[in-house]
Amino acid sequence: MAESDAGPDVAAPDELPVALTDPAYREAVVDLLAVIAYGELSAFERLVEDAKLAPALEDKLALAQMAGAELAKVQPLIDRIAKLGGDPFEAMAPFHEALDEFHAHTAPADWYEGLVKAFVGDSLARDFYREIAAYLDPDTRDLVVSSVVEGNHAAFAVDHIRQAIASDPPLGGRLALWGRRIMGEALTQAQRVAADRDALTALLVGGVDRPGLDLAALGRMLTRLTERHSERMAELGLDA
Amino acid sequence: MAESDAGPDVAAPDELPVALTDPAYREAVVDLLAVIAYGELSAFERLVEDAKLAPALEDKLALAQMAGAELAKVQPLIDRIAKLGGDPFEAMAPFHEALDEFHAHTAPADWYEGLVKAFVGDSLARDFYREIAAYLDPDTRDLVVSSVVEGNHAAFAVDHIRQAIASDPPLGGRLALWGRRIMGEALTQAQRVAADRDALTALLVGGVDRPGLDLAALGRMLTRLTERHSERMAELGLDA
Repeated sequence: MAESDAGPDVAAPDELPVALTDPAYREAVVDLLAVIAYGELSAFERLVEDAKLAPALEDKLALAQMAGAELAKVQPLIDRIAKLGGDPFEAMAPFHEALDEFHAHTAPADWYEGLVKAFVGDSLARDFYREIAAYLDPDTRDLVVSSVVEGNHAAFAVDHIRQAIASDPPLGGRLALWGRRIMGEALTQAQRVAADRDALTALLVGGVDRPGLDLAALGRMLTRLTERHSERMAELGLDA
Repeated sequence: MAESDAGPDVAAPDELPVALTDPAYREAVVDLLAVIAYGELSAFERLVEDAKLAPALEDKLALAQMAGAELAKVQPLIDRIAKLGGDPFEAMAPFHEALDEFHAHTAPADWYEGLVKAFVGDSLARDFYREIAAYLDPDTRDLVVSSVVEGNHAAFAVDHIRQAIASDPPLGGRLALWGRRIMGEALTQAQRVAADRDALTALLVGGVDRPGLDLAALGRMLTRLTERHSERMAELGLDA
Protein backbone atom coordinates (compact mmCIF):
# COMPACT_ATOMS: atom_id res chain seq x y z
CA MET A 1 0.00 0.00 0.00
CA ALA A 2 1.30 3.37 -1.02
CA GLU A 3 0.56 5.02 2.31
CA SER A 4 2.73 2.68 4.35
CA ASP A 5 5.46 2.54 1.70
CA ALA A 6 5.81 6.28 1.95
CA GLY A 7 7.53 5.88 5.32
CA PRO A 8 6.62 6.82 8.87
CA ASP A 9 7.07 10.59 8.41
CA VAL A 10 4.33 10.98 5.82
CA ALA A 11 0.78 11.08 7.14
CA ALA A 12 -1.70 8.77 5.42
CA PRO A 13 -4.47 10.85 3.73
CA ASP A 14 -7.03 9.77 6.32
CA GLU A 15 -4.83 11.12 9.13
CA LEU A 16 -4.85 14.61 7.64
CA PRO A 17 -7.45 17.27 8.44
CA VAL A 18 -10.12 17.32 5.71
CA ALA A 19 -8.87 20.61 4.21
CA LEU A 20 -5.44 19.07 3.57
CA THR A 21 -6.84 16.20 1.51
CA ASP A 22 -7.44 18.77 -1.25
CA PRO A 23 -4.24 18.59 -3.36
CA ALA A 24 -4.36 22.25 -4.42
CA TYR A 25 -4.74 23.41 -0.83
CA ARG A 26 -2.03 21.03 0.34
CA GLU A 27 0.30 22.34 -2.35
CA ALA A 28 -0.39 25.89 -1.19
CA VAL A 29 0.30 24.96 2.43
CA VAL A 30 3.59 23.28 1.51
CA ASP A 31 4.54 26.46 -0.39
CA LEU A 32 3.63 28.61 2.58
CA LEU A 33 5.51 26.51 5.14
CA ALA A 34 8.50 26.36 2.78
CA VAL A 35 8.68 30.12 2.25
CA ILE A 36 8.44 30.68 6.01
CA ALA A 37 11.13 28.03 6.68
CA TYR A 38 13.52 29.47 4.11
CA GLY A 39 12.69 32.95 5.38
CA GLU A 40 13.67 31.96 8.93
CA LEU A 41 16.80 30.16 7.76
CA SER A 42 17.99 33.06 5.61
CA ALA A 43 17.11 35.53 8.38
CA PHE A 44 19.25 33.44 10.74
CA GLU A 45 22.24 33.57 8.40
CA ARG A 46 21.94 37.30 7.78
CA LEU A 47 21.48 38.17 11.44
CA VAL A 48 24.65 36.27 12.33
CA GLU A 49 26.44 38.07 9.51
CA ASP A 50 25.08 41.44 10.68
CA ALA A 51 26.07 40.62 14.26
CA LYS A 52 29.69 41.13 13.14
CA LEU A 53 28.90 44.85 13.04
CA ALA A 54 28.07 44.90 16.76
CA PRO A 55 29.94 47.55 18.77
CA ALA A 56 30.41 45.17 21.72
CA LEU A 57 30.38 41.46 22.42
CA GLU A 58 27.21 41.89 24.48
CA ASP A 59 25.38 43.39 21.48
CA LYS A 60 26.72 40.69 19.20
CA LEU A 61 25.37 38.02 21.53
CA ALA A 62 21.95 39.70 21.63
CA LEU A 63 21.69 39.68 17.82
CA ALA A 64 23.03 36.12 17.67
CA GLN A 65 20.29 35.10 20.11
CA MET A 66 17.67 36.75 17.88
CA ALA A 67 19.16 34.68 15.05
CA GLY A 68 19.05 31.50 17.14
CA ALA A 69 15.35 32.09 17.82
CA GLU A 70 14.67 32.22 14.06
CA LEU A 71 16.65 29.05 13.48
CA ALA A 72 14.75 27.14 16.17
CA LYS A 73 11.52 27.68 14.21
CA VAL A 74 12.79 25.93 11.07
CA GLN A 75 12.68 22.28 12.16
CA PRO A 76 8.93 22.10 13.01
CA LEU A 77 8.12 23.61 9.59
CA ILE A 78 10.37 21.06 7.87
CA ASP A 79 8.77 18.22 9.81
CA ARG A 80 5.28 19.35 8.81
CA ILE A 81 6.20 19.66 5.11
CA ALA A 82 7.53 16.08 5.23
CA LYS A 83 4.35 14.93 6.95
CA LEU A 84 2.34 16.47 4.11
CA GLY A 85 4.37 14.38 1.67
CA GLY A 86 6.60 17.22 0.43
CA ASP A 87 10.39 17.29 0.20
CA PRO A 88 11.22 20.22 2.50
CA PHE A 89 14.38 21.29 0.70
CA GLU A 90 12.88 20.99 -2.79
CA ALA A 91 9.87 22.90 -1.52
CA MET A 92 12.13 25.76 -0.36
CA ALA A 93 14.03 26.01 -3.66
CA PRO A 94 11.50 28.23 -5.51
CA PHE A 95 11.87 30.87 -2.77
CA HIS A 96 15.67 31.11 -2.64
CA GLU A 97 15.94 33.80 -5.27
CA ALA A 98 13.33 36.20 -3.86
CA LEU A 99 14.61 35.93 -0.28
CA ASP A 100 18.30 35.99 -1.22
CA GLU A 101 17.67 39.10 -3.33
CA PHE A 102 15.76 40.72 -0.48
CA HIS A 103 18.81 40.26 1.73
CA ALA A 104 21.31 41.24 -0.99
CA HIS A 105 19.40 44.51 -1.52
CA THR A 106 19.09 45.25 2.19
CA ALA A 107 22.60 44.50 3.44
CA PRO A 108 23.08 46.89 6.37
CA ALA A 109 25.97 49.31 6.22
CA ASP A 110 26.37 49.50 9.98
CA TRP A 111 25.15 48.12 13.28
CA TYR A 112 22.06 50.36 13.52
CA GLU A 113 20.89 49.55 10.00
CA GLY A 114 21.28 45.90 11.00
CA LEU A 115 19.18 46.39 14.13
CA VAL A 116 16.44 48.25 12.22
CA LYS A 117 16.40 45.50 9.60
CA ALA A 118 16.18 42.77 12.23
CA PHE A 119 13.31 44.51 13.99
CA VAL A 120 11.37 45.76 10.96
CA GLY A 121 11.94 42.74 8.71
CA ASP A 122 10.99 40.22 11.36
CA SER A 123 7.89 42.22 12.37
CA LEU A 124 6.75 42.57 8.75
CA ALA A 125 7.06 38.84 8.17
CA ARG A 126 5.15 38.17 11.39
CA ASP A 127 2.31 40.55 10.42
CA PHE A 128 1.99 38.98 6.99
CA TYR A 129 1.91 35.42 8.31
CA ARG A 130 -0.73 36.38 10.87
CA GLU A 131 -2.85 37.87 8.09
CA ILE A 132 -2.54 34.77 5.95
CA ALA A 133 -3.26 32.53 8.97
CA ALA A 134 -6.93 33.48 8.71
CA TYR A 135 -7.16 31.46 5.47
CA LEU A 136 -5.65 28.26 6.89
CA ASP A 137 -6.98 25.11 8.50
CA PRO A 138 -6.56 25.15 12.33
CA ASP A 139 -3.50 22.79 12.44
CA THR A 140 -1.57 24.78 9.86
CA ARG A 141 -2.68 28.05 11.43
CA ASP A 142 -1.33 27.02 14.85
CA LEU A 143 2.02 26.04 13.35
CA VAL A 144 2.33 29.25 11.33
CA VAL A 145 1.37 31.50 14.23
CA SER A 146 3.70 29.70 16.67
CA SER A 147 6.58 29.93 14.20
CA VAL A 148 6.30 33.70 14.06
CA VAL A 149 5.82 34.34 17.77
CA GLU A 150 7.76 37.31 19.02
CA GLY A 151 10.84 36.77 21.15
CA ASN A 152 11.92 39.15 23.91
CA HIS A 153 14.45 40.69 21.56
CA ALA A 154 12.32 43.41 19.97
CA ALA A 155 12.72 45.51 23.11
CA PHE A 156 16.50 45.24 22.75
CA ALA A 157 16.36 46.62 19.21
CA VAL A 158 13.91 49.39 20.07
CA ASP A 159 15.90 50.54 23.13
CA HIS A 160 19.23 50.61 21.32
CA ILE A 161 17.92 52.41 18.24
CA ARG A 162 16.07 55.06 20.28
CA GLN A 163 19.16 55.69 22.41
CA ALA A 164 21.39 55.99 19.36
CA ILE A 165 19.07 58.50 17.67
CA ALA A 166 18.79 60.52 20.90
CA SER A 167 22.57 60.98 20.97
CA ASP A 168 22.94 61.42 17.18
CA PRO A 169 19.74 62.95 15.67
CA PRO A 170 20.92 62.86 12.00
CA LEU A 171 21.03 59.05 12.34
CA GLY A 172 17.23 59.21 12.59
CA GLY A 173 16.90 60.59 9.06
CA ARG A 174 19.15 57.93 7.60
CA LEU A 175 17.40 55.09 9.44
CA ALA A 176 13.97 56.41 8.36
CA LEU A 177 15.07 56.14 4.70
CA TRP A 178 16.51 52.72 5.46
CA GLY A 179 13.21 51.50 6.93
CA ARG A 180 11.41 52.64 3.75
CA ARG A 181 13.91 50.76 1.64
CA ILE A 182 13.35 47.53 3.62
CA MET A 183 9.57 47.88 3.25
CA GLY A 184 9.87 48.59 -0.49
CA GLU A 185 12.17 45.65 -1.09
CA ALA A 186 9.89 43.34 0.91
CA LEU A 187 6.89 44.37 -1.22
CA THR A 188 8.89 43.92 -4.45
CA GLN A 189 9.95 40.41 -3.51
CA ALA A 190 6.52 39.45 -2.15
CA GLN A 191 4.93 40.50 -5.46
CA ARG A 192 7.48 38.41 -7.31
CA VAL A 193 6.67 35.33 -5.20
CA ALA A 194 2.94 35.95 -5.70
CA ALA A 195 3.42 36.12 -9.48
CA ASP A 196 5.45 32.90 -9.57
CA ARG A 197 3.54 30.68 -7.15
CA ASP A 198 -0.02 30.18 -8.30
CA ALA A 199 -1.04 27.78 -5.53
CA LEU A 200 0.17 30.13 -2.81
CA THR A 201 -1.51 33.11 -4.44
CA ALA A 202 -4.77 31.17 -4.84
CA LEU A 203 -4.76 30.68 -1.07
CA LEU A 204 -5.09 34.44 -0.69
CA VAL A 205 -7.12 35.51 -3.70
CA GLY A 206 -9.23 32.33 -4.00
CA GLY A 207 -9.28 29.68 -6.69
CA VAL A 208 -11.93 28.32 -9.06
CA ASP A 209 -13.85 26.65 -6.23
CA ARG A 210 -12.51 28.44 -3.18
CA PRO A 211 -13.44 31.82 -1.81
CA GLY A 212 -10.60 34.22 -1.18
CA LEU A 213 -9.79 37.86 -0.83
CA ASP A 214 -11.11 40.09 -3.57
CA LEU A 215 -8.86 42.87 -4.80
CA ALA A 216 -10.41 45.38 -2.43
CA ALA A 217 -9.77 43.08 0.56
CA LEU A 218 -6.21 42.46 -0.64
CA GLY A 219 -5.76 46.22 -0.81
CA ARG A 220 -7.03 46.58 2.74
CA MET A 221 -4.60 43.90 3.92
CA LEU A 222 -1.69 45.79 2.34
CA THR A 223 -2.93 48.96 3.99
CA ARG A 224 -2.97 47.22 7.39
CA LEU A 225 0.59 45.90 6.86
CA THR A 226 1.80 49.36 5.85
CA GLU A 227 0.09 51.00 8.81
CA ARG A 228 1.67 48.59 11.24
CA HIS A 229 5.06 49.23 9.63
CA SER A 230 4.52 52.97 10.18
CA GLU A 231 3.60 52.37 13.81
CA ARG A 232 6.78 50.38 14.32
CA MET A 233 8.91 53.07 12.70
CA ALA A 234 7.27 55.58 15.05
CA GLU A 235 8.09 53.28 17.97
CA LEU A 236 11.74 53.54 16.89
CA GLY A 237 11.38 57.32 16.77
CA LEU A 238 11.48 57.37 12.95
CA ASP A 239 9.23 58.71 10.19
CA ALA A 240 7.88 55.87 8.05
CA MET B 1 24.75 46.71 52.89
CA ALA B 2 27.06 45.93 50.04
CA GLU B 3 25.45 42.56 49.29
CA SER B 4 22.01 43.98 48.61
CA ASP B 5 23.39 47.00 46.72
CA ALA B 6 25.03 44.67 44.27
CA GLY B 7 21.63 43.89 42.73
CA PRO B 8 19.44 40.81 42.51
CA ASP B 9 21.68 38.93 40.05
CA VAL B 10 24.66 38.70 42.37
CA ALA B 11 24.51 36.04 45.08
CA ALA B 12 25.31 37.19 48.60
CA PRO B 13 28.45 35.37 49.89
CA ASP B 14 26.41 33.25 52.33
CA GLU B 15 24.30 31.93 49.42
CA LEU B 16 27.35 30.57 47.64
CA PRO B 17 28.75 27.07 48.16
CA VAL B 18 31.64 27.20 50.63
CA ALA B 19 34.27 26.59 47.94
CA LEU B 20 33.13 29.73 46.08
CA THR B 21 33.66 31.97 49.11
CA ASP B 22 37.40 31.60 48.46
CA PRO B 23 38.23 34.60 46.22
CA ALA B 24 41.05 32.79 44.36
CA TYR B 25 38.84 29.82 43.60
CA ARG B 26 35.95 32.09 42.59
CA GLU B 27 38.27 33.99 40.25
CA ALA B 28 39.35 30.70 38.67
CA VAL B 29 35.73 29.60 38.20
CA VAL B 30 34.81 32.93 36.58
CA ASP B 31 37.78 32.48 34.25
CA LEU B 32 36.71 28.94 33.41
CA LEU B 33 33.07 29.83 32.75
CA ALA B 34 34.18 32.83 30.68
CA VAL B 35 36.53 30.82 28.47
CA ILE B 36 33.82 28.21 27.91
CA ALA B 37 31.22 30.91 27.14
CA TYR B 38 33.49 32.71 24.68
CA GLY B 39 34.47 29.34 23.22
CA GLU B 40 30.81 28.47 22.56
CA LEU B 41 30.06 31.92 21.17
CA SER B 42 33.04 31.91 18.81
CA ALA B 43 32.28 28.30 17.79
CA PHE B 44 28.74 29.42 16.97
CA GLU B 45 29.99 32.22 14.73
CA ARG B 46 32.51 30.05 12.94
CA LEU B 47 30.10 27.17 12.39
CA VAL B 48 27.62 29.54 10.77
CA GLU B 49 30.42 30.94 8.62
CA ASP B 50 31.57 27.42 7.68
CA ALA B 51 27.96 26.43 6.90
CA LYS B 52 28.27 28.64 3.81
CA LEU B 53 30.50 25.92 2.35
CA ALA B 54 27.67 23.35 2.55
CA PRO B 55 26.97 21.49 -0.71
CA ALA B 56 23.20 21.58 -0.09
CA LEU B 57 20.70 23.55 1.96
CA GLU B 58 20.02 20.45 4.06
CA ASP B 59 23.70 20.23 5.04
CA LYS B 60 23.81 23.94 5.75
CA LEU B 61 20.85 23.61 8.10
CA ALA B 62 22.48 20.69 9.92
CA LEU B 63 25.64 22.71 10.60
CA ALA B 64 23.56 25.78 11.53
CA GLN B 65 21.72 23.62 14.07
CA MET B 66 25.04 22.45 15.54
CA ALA B 67 25.90 26.16 15.82
CA GLY B 68 22.56 26.93 17.46
CA ALA B 69 23.22 24.23 20.07
CA GLU B 70 26.53 25.94 20.99
CA LEU B 71 24.85 29.32 21.25
CA ALA B 72 22.14 28.02 23.56
CA LYS B 73 24.80 27.08 26.12
CA VAL B 74 26.13 30.64 26.45
CA GLN B 75 23.37 32.30 28.47
CA PRO B 76 23.49 29.96 31.53
CA LEU B 77 27.28 30.53 31.74
CA ILE B 78 26.79 34.29 31.55
CA ASP B 79 24.11 34.16 34.23
CA ARG B 80 26.39 32.18 36.54
CA ILE B 81 29.32 34.56 36.07
CA ALA B 82 27.02 37.46 36.98
CA LYS B 83 25.80 35.56 40.04
CA LEU B 84 29.43 35.13 41.14
CA GLY B 85 29.84 38.90 40.94
CA GLY B 86 31.78 38.96 37.67
CA ASP B 87 31.07 41.04 34.57
CA PRO B 88 30.52 38.31 31.96
CA PHE B 89 31.77 40.29 28.99
CA GLU B 90 34.80 41.69 30.80
CA ALA B 91 35.53 38.16 32.01
CA MET B 92 35.55 36.86 28.43
CA ALA B 93 37.89 39.58 27.13
CA PRO B 94 41.18 37.88 28.15
CA PHE B 95 40.24 34.85 26.03
CA HIS B 96 39.33 36.60 22.79
CA GLU B 97 42.81 36.52 21.35
CA ALA B 98 43.54 32.82 21.94
CA LEU B 99 40.18 31.64 20.63
CA ASP B 100 40.08 34.07 17.72
CA GLU B 101 43.57 32.95 16.72
CA PHE B 102 42.58 29.31 17.03
CA HIS B 103 39.78 29.95 14.54
CA ALA B 104 41.90 32.15 12.26
CA HIS B 105 44.52 29.39 12.04
CA THR B 106 41.96 26.66 11.43
CA ALA B 107 39.67 28.27 8.84
CA PRO B 108 38.42 25.33 6.76
CA ALA B 109 39.10 25.40 3.01
CA ASP B 110 36.03 23.35 2.15
CA TRP B 111 32.93 21.70 3.54
CA TYR B 112 34.66 18.56 4.76
CA GLU B 113 37.39 20.44 6.59
CA GLY B 114 34.55 22.41 8.21
CA LEU B 115 32.79 19.21 9.28
CA VAL B 116 35.99 17.69 10.71
CA LYS B 117 36.68 20.89 12.60
CA ALA B 118 33.16 21.02 14.01
CA PHE B 119 33.35 17.42 15.18
CA VAL B 120 36.95 17.33 16.41
CA GLY B 121 37.05 20.82 17.90
CA ASP B 122 33.81 20.42 19.80
CA SER B 123 34.80 16.95 21.08
CA LEU B 124 38.22 18.18 22.23
CA ALA B 125 36.67 21.05 24.15
CA ARG B 126 34.16 18.68 25.72
CA ASP B 127 36.89 16.22 26.81
CA PHE B 128 38.93 18.98 28.35
CA TYR B 129 36.03 20.46 30.27
CA ARG B 130 35.09 17.02 31.59
CA GLU B 131 38.65 16.54 32.81
CA ILE B 132 38.70 19.89 34.54
CA ALA B 133 35.24 19.22 36.05
CA ALA B 134 36.86 16.86 38.55
CA TYR B 135 38.52 19.86 40.24
CA LEU B 136 35.31 21.88 40.65
CA ASP B 137 32.67 22.27 43.34
CA PRO B 138 29.47 20.32 42.53
CA ASP B 139 27.38 23.32 41.33
CA THR B 140 30.04 24.55 38.95
CA ARG B 141 30.76 21.00 37.83
CA ASP B 142 27.10 20.43 36.90
CA LEU B 143 26.97 23.64 34.91
CA VAL B 144 30.23 22.92 33.07
CA VAL B 145 29.27 19.34 32.26
CA SER B 146 25.77 20.32 31.07
CA SER B 147 27.19 23.08 28.88
CA VAL B 148 29.35 20.62 26.98
CA VAL B 149 26.78 17.86 26.60
CA GLU B 150 26.85 16.29 23.18
CA GLY B 151 24.05 17.02 20.73
CA ASN B 152 22.78 14.52 18.17
CA HIS B 153 24.90 16.19 15.53
CA ALA B 154 28.13 14.24 15.90
CA ALA B 155 26.56 11.33 14.02
CA PHE B 156 25.79 13.68 11.11
CA ALA B 157 29.45 14.74 10.86
CA VAL B 158 30.79 11.20 11.20
CA ASP B 159 28.41 9.79 8.57
CA HIS B 160 29.11 12.49 6.02
CA ILE B 161 32.89 12.40 6.43
CA ARG B 162 33.05 8.59 6.20
CA GLN B 163 30.91 8.59 3.06
CA ALA B 164 32.99 11.30 1.42
CA ILE B 165 36.26 9.44 2.11
CA ALA B 166 34.77 6.19 0.82
CA SER B 167 34.01 7.81 -2.53
CA ASP B 168 37.24 9.89 -2.63
CA PRO B 169 40.05 8.09 -0.71
CA PRO B 170 42.72 10.83 -1.17
CA LEU B 171 40.42 13.12 0.82
CA GLY B 172 41.21 10.89 3.83
CA GLY B 173 44.90 11.85 3.73
CA ARG B 174 44.15 15.54 3.55
CA LEU B 175 41.60 15.39 6.38
CA ALA B 176 44.01 13.37 8.56
CA LEU B 177 46.58 16.19 8.26
CA TRP B 178 43.82 18.68 8.92
CA GLY B 179 42.82 16.89 12.13
CA ARG B 180 46.43 17.06 13.33
CA ARG B 181 46.53 20.76 12.60
CA ILE B 182 43.39 21.38 14.65
CA MET B 183 44.81 19.39 17.59
CA GLY B 184 48.15 21.22 17.37
CA GLU B 185 46.54 24.64 17.24
CA ALA B 186 44.26 23.77 20.17
CA LEU B 187 47.28 22.76 22.29
CA THR B 188 49.17 25.91 21.28
CA GLN B 189 46.32 28.20 22.30
CA ALA B 190 45.54 26.22 25.47
CA GLN B 191 49.17 26.60 26.55
CA ARG B 192 48.96 30.32 25.89
CA VAL B 193 45.83 30.64 28.04
CA ALA B 194 47.50 28.58 30.80
CA ALA B 195 50.54 30.86 30.74
CA ASP B 196 48.42 34.03 30.91
CA ARG B 197 45.77 33.08 33.43
CA ASP B 198 47.31 32.21 36.77
CA ALA B 199 44.03 31.62 38.63
CA LEU B 200 42.76 29.22 36.00
CA THR B 201 46.06 27.36 35.88
CA ALA B 202 46.16 27.13 39.66
CA LEU B 203 42.84 25.29 39.50
CA LEU B 204 44.60 22.51 37.61
CA VAL B 205 48.11 22.50 39.02
CA GLY B 206 47.24 23.62 42.54
CA GLY B 207 48.07 26.82 44.38
CA VAL B 208 49.98 27.67 47.56
CA ASP B 209 47.26 26.16 49.78
CA ARG B 210 45.38 23.98 47.33
CA PRO B 211 46.24 20.52 46.04
CA GLY B 212 46.21 20.09 42.27
CA LEU B 213 47.64 17.99 39.53
CA ASP B 214 51.36 17.41 39.68
CA LEU B 215 53.26 17.51 36.41
CA ALA B 216 53.00 13.74 35.98
CA ALA B 217 49.21 13.88 36.41
CA LEU B 218 49.00 16.79 33.98
CA GLY B 219 50.99 14.72 31.50
CA ARG B 220 48.59 11.82 31.94
CA MET B 221 45.63 14.14 31.31
CA LEU B 222 47.21 15.35 28.06
CA THR B 223 47.81 11.74 27.09
CA ARG B 224 44.14 10.91 27.69
CA LEU B 225 43.01 13.91 25.61
CA THR B 226 45.35 12.91 22.78
CA GLU B 227 44.19 9.30 22.91
CA ARG B 228 40.56 10.28 22.67
CA HIS B 229 41.40 12.56 19.77
CA SER B 230 43.03 9.57 18.01
CA GLU B 231 39.95 7.43 18.67
CA ARG B 232 37.74 10.07 17.12
CA MET B 233 39.94 10.39 14.08
CA ALA B 234 39.74 6.60 13.71
CA GLU B 235 35.95 6.86 14.00
CA LEU B 236 36.09 9.20 11.00
CA GLY B 237 38.26 6.67 9.17
CA LEU B 238 41.37 8.86 9.52
CA ASP B 239 44.88 8.37 10.92
CA ALA B 240 45.46 10.68 13.86
